[in-house]
Amino acid sequence: MDANRKELKQFIRPHLTEERFQHTVRVTDTAHHLADIFGGDAHKIEVAGMLHDYAKYRPYEEMRRWIEGSVDVPKDLLNYSPVLWHGPVGVKMLEKEWGALDKDVQSAIASHTTGNAIMSIYDKLIFLADYIEPGRDFPGVQEARRLAEVDLDKACLFALDNTIRYLMSKQQTVYPGTFHAYNLLQKKQEEENG
Amino acid sequence: MDANRKELKQFIRPHLTEERFQHTVRVTDTAHHLADIFGGDAHKIEVAGMLHDYAKYRPYEEMRRWIEGSVDVPKDLLNYSPVLWHGPVGVKMLEKEWGALDKDVQSAIASHTTGNAIMSIYDKLIFLADYIEPGRDFPGVQEARRLAEVDLDKACLFALDNTIRYLMSKQQTVYPGTFHAYNLLQKKQEEENG
Repeated sequence: MDANRKELKQFIRPHLTEERFQHTVRVTDTAHHLADIFGGDAHKIEVAGMLHDYAKYRPYEEMRRWIEGSVDVPKDLLNYSPVLWHGPVGVKMLEKEWGALDKDVQSAIASHTTGNAIMSIYDKLIFLADYIEPGRDFPGVQEARRLAEVDLDKACLFALDNTIRYLMSKQQTVYPGTFHAYNLLQKKQEEENG
Repeated sequence: MDANRKELKQFIRPHLTEERFQHTVRVTDTAHHLADIFGGDAHKIEVAGMLHDYAKYRPYEEMRRWIEGSVDVPKDLLNYSPVLWHGPVGVKMLEKEWGALDKDVQSAIASHTTGNAIMSIYDKLIFLADYIEPGRDFPGVQEARRLAEVDLDKACLFALDNTIRYLMSKQQTVYPGTFHAYNLLQKKQEEENG
């Protein structure tokens, strides 16, 4: 956990495509920018950002075995799209192949694609940075970036809402953690508004 | 449970507005029509249809006490909109004020507003009949009616999808049972298509 960016880059590079590696650096820089506004320990953000996509290109069958073999990875992931697996599986792989990770870092990596029911500041920073990093281009990203400068919860809620709508428009299932994250942030907005 | 429509009408009428009473009769007739296509015991449908909105006009505070006092009503309902409470609460009230109800009837009444994770044929018939009865008029109801003539699961999935989108467009929370129902029916479609 006392790695600097050079070490993190050397470690992660062989596991990613060049494009994904550049995305990783942009996510980390974006998360640092958000932390300048909303707070968060820079070293945790550095590690979580640089390692969040570690398992992205592992074969689905390998990831399936990690999920089946890890007591603390939710088994219901197997009922949902394999593109959701690399966060939680990455954490388990990194424990073996990188070393012990801080709990906040683990959670942020595990939940970066789906969100989760109760999102910590680090979960939100990495989830949102992954959604809005400068290389992203999709309907709604500019509004997400605008919100990210002023209100972390509203920006995350916007991203979750947009993600759920997108999945539904594609007639896909929605991972329960994503809906729970939406509900909790929506409820928080209701309480703040009234 | 051996009541005929006359008895059911006499029992339910004092608990509903005239408009809601007419809705109740239309839901029951629509559910019978759907059962002619997809199957289901006519007497269960008659009772579930006629009694599904029994608790609709009870004060929220009274419903809250029923939820707090009933071991088999999910407490997390209290974290969601009170308009979702009358189904599960109605079942508990009916047990006292009407008498024993068949399990299929209980489940269909309890889940008619939200859907639930694993919907029985009766749950689907009442949920869908409530959604498409001839008095309903909202964007999508004609498509729901068209699907209801040919595929019960697709019609329920359409209704759930439309309901979730509507709630999200109003910046409201979505009861977990509703998205679990969406996910399960969506997954079933995926499996049937692929």
